[in-house]
Amino acid sequence: MTNLDFSEKILSLLQDKKYAALQKYLETLEPADIAECMTDLLDDGELEERDLLRLFRLLPKELASDTFAEMDADLQEKLIGGFTDKELSEVLQDMFLDDTVDVIEEMPASVVKRILKAVDSDTRKSINQVLSYPEDSAGSIMTIEYVDLRPAMTVAEAFARIRETGVDKETIYICYIIGPTRKLLGLVSVRELLLAAPDTVLRDMMETNITAVSTLDDREDVANLFARYDYTALPVVDKENRLVGIVTVDDAIDVLQEEATEDIEKMAAITPSEHPYLRAKTLEIWKQRIPWLLLLMVSATFTGMIISGFEQALAAQAALIAFIPMLMDTGGNCGSQASVTVIRGMSLGEIELSDVLRVMWKEIRVSLMCGGVLGAVAFAKIMLIDGLLMGNPGITVPVAAVVCATLVCTVVLAKLVGCTLPMAAKKLGFDPAVMASPFITTIVDALSLLLYFQIASLLLGV
Amino acid sequence: MTNLDFSEKILSLLQDKKYAALQKYLETLEPADIAECMTDLLDDGELEERDLLRLFRLLPKELASDTFAEMDADLQEKLIGGFTDKELSEVLQDMFLDDTVDVIEEMPASVVKRILKAVDSDTRKSINQVLSYPEDSAGSIMTIEYVDLRPAMTVAEAFARIRETGVDKETIYICYIIGPTRKLLGLVSVRELLLAAPDTVLRDMMETNITAVSTLDDREDVANLFARYDYTALPVVDKENRLVGIVTVDDAIDVLQEEATEDIEKMAAITPSEHPYLRAKTLEIWKQRIPWLLLLMVSATFTGMIISGFEQALAAQAALIAFIPMLMDTGGNCGSQASVTVIRGMSLGEIELSDVLRVMWKEIRVSLMCGGVLGAVAFAKIMLIDGLLMGNPGITVPVAAVVCATLVCTVVLAKLVGCTLPMAAKKLGFDPAVMASPFITTIVDALSLLLYFQIASLLLGV
Repeated sequence: MTNLDFSEKILSLLQDKKYAALQKYLETLEPADIAECMTDLLDDGELEERDLLRLFRLLPKELASDTFAEMDADLQEKLIGGFTDKELSEVLQDMFLDDTVDVIEEMPASVVKRILKAVDSDTRKSINQVLSYPEDSAGSIMTIEYVDLRPAMTVAEAFARIRETGVDKETIYICYIIGPTRKLLGLVSVRELLLAAPDTVLRDMMETNITAVSTLDDREDVANLFARYDYTALPVVDKENRLVGIVTVDDAIDVLQEEATEDIEKMAAITPSEHPYLRAKTLEIWKQRIPWLLLLMVSATFTGMIISGFEQALAAQAALIAFIPMLMDTGGNCGSQASVTVIRGMSLGEIELSDVLRVMWKEIRVSLMCGGVLGAVAFAKIMLIDGLLMGNPGITVPVAAVVCATLVCTVVLAKLVGCTLPMAAKKLGFDPAVMASPFITTIVDALSLLLYFQIASLLLGV
Repeated sequence: MTNLDFSEKILSLLQDKKYAALQKYLETLEPADIAECMTDLLDDGELEERDLLRLFRLLPKELASDTFAEMDADLQEKLIGGFTDKELSEVLQDMFLDDTVDVIEEMPASVVKRILKAVDSDTRKSINQVLSYPEDSAGSIMTIEYVDLRPAMTVAEAFARIRETGVDKETIYICYIIGPTRKLLGLVSVRELLLAAPDTVLRDMMETNITAVSTLDDREDVANLFARYDYTALPVVDKENRLVGIVTVDDAIDVLQEEATEDIEKMAAITPSEHPYLRAKTLEIWKQRIPWLLLLMVSATFTGMIISGFEQALAAQAALIAFIPMLMDTGGNCGSQASVTVIRGMSLGEIELSDVLRVMWKEIRVSLMCGGVLGAVAFAKIMLIDGLLMGNPGITVPVAAVVCATLVCTVVLAKLVGCTLPMAAKKLGFDPAVMASPFITTIVDALSLLLYFQIASLLLGV
């Protein structure tokens, strides 16, 4: 079943006014699917806004909140516009705090005001706290719904507390044990509780050697901890080691996916977007792309100037012109292979800045091996295909030698530039992902042409 | 604390023969960190193989198994070589089945034989079953350790069974309810069990509307389900809907990370590797890169041929040569922006093959907007900087017009090629990620040069 099928079924039941059957059908779907169907139906003009509200009101309370949390901001804003204050309050009540904060971050001020009025004062306080953490920090993705226990409790008391508070807690399977000032003392898993005798005291069984992250830690670093250590939740503490929230594995997955997409977009000279491609407006996509295209186009001016400077020489040895694209492309490809490898390695935490010399030494060896093979193949190809087969009289052994010598130097240079620039960018506090193919290509283009003409004037005397 | 600190501390305790302190220290570390320290110490020559074995023997039983599962294949093979049969059997006994299968897949036949001899016959049977699923299938990443319950059990009986069997189960928080032939009937979470009265019968409370995957489903699709629906585990069933295993969220994260890395590598014309960059041998990195470089270099021959064909015209209008790099680079950048966006969108399931017309229509609009701006800026730049400022007499309005007309056409063409080729590749059953920057650039280079000379001969009569 695809979402298309879901949408069609929902639409046909709605149009036939079979509300009871529709309600039953909706209950079998996942929140993410319902949210996507609503967006699709609205985008395609199959649903009007008041149908949407009618559809949403059919959802049972908890499913309604979960579905609302999965919607994109446009749809959420439309729905909030139609909600009564009571409805808004009910939807928010069943949502996890981190999801509510996500909603708030996307809404205009007037809607934020309505939301903050609709929640109780405790929640409002927590929302404001989470909102105060910087974007991309662990604090901004944490939730404050977790089970906290005391060291003096027994296992039986712990279960009583989980039962009492656990219904709307995002993760109940790992419980945190805190001291009088909320200092994090240890943790215990429900699995260990299940296996322990009911009168065991938590102090005697809790795990005290725990990994906690700080509210200000980078969310990507936190997500990488989940990937590396297979956690399902991590406690978030403030500077005084007081427990303020937890990050759960589902949010960590979202961060990992988003960060990978952002890296990929930056590597292709695109400003990362908030919206999925098909949902983004044309103007938005244009804005993501045009600044980089302009910047790179203007940078290519230098390459043009280099060629202009050698115009006379090129007119005399016209055969050299034909190899410019091959040299530029190969240089660009070599450079982007090296840069992309290093950028991804740094994202995954496999390559540190201190590895710079090891990386360069590796790239020098790889590039000499690549350059050797490429140079030899290019020489044979030029002499046999361009010279003999195509009968181009401009192709001589010295010309082929110039091309191949340039090729080898370009490959080595491209790989060195490709591996060092991303690391230099990181060292300077910039995002290394920007130093991928497009920028490397522009730089390597200029360098390879300079080399080309230098070597040509040396060997051919042009 | 970084791994470097861990390694130094381990080494100094080992050299001072403070084994009791070392053992205590190791118990505070995560398995993944211990495994990495061992690899680093061995790679740097600080540890010999027999020290390694001594170090490993200090680990308590469960930590030893967890650490072993985190090691790379080389290290595992070295350790197995030093293990007695009893040691091997103990390490394997505490490992999860999916991890054991991962080990087996990397080992030479003689070691596999030893491993299969070291486990009991039930485990052997399960290992052989999991090994029989295709690589990249859900079956290959599933584990067979899960809690299965019967519909007639009460909550109290369910807890008794979890306590009895749950110690070495990978995920106990979601329990699966199966019928007489192991048919999957429903599931129940430990959270629901905790909140239910002890005499409730599972049949009356279990969730029957469940998502299950098939053993042969693609592992990337399965991992995407985790990302989309926030699952912590998914049941894996065979064709007859019989429960054969579960996939857990930690494995899903690994798959998502691996697939993102593979896509990134393929987009940069690199054959994906098994090893992290710093650990891969130079020859291995060379092998990942050289075939693509050769292929792309030879493809650039066509671009060279196009230029050769217009050698006479270029010699007459030498000013045109200087703009070749700018046109090629801009075309390449536009093409890779479109292709990378579409490739990532397809990986995330946001773009389907059926969206091809919507994608093309979007790219046409975006490319006209990009082309318009780039063309206008390029025209101004050529006339002002190249013409007036640099005083190049070859720069005339017709020349600038040729360049800018080519630029606009190239941008539109590049974006269309860039968005359609990955979708065409997927339609034909190839990996769309291969159709990224390098290939698109090579194709767009040739097309843009053909356009350039066509337009030049039209407008300039060369």
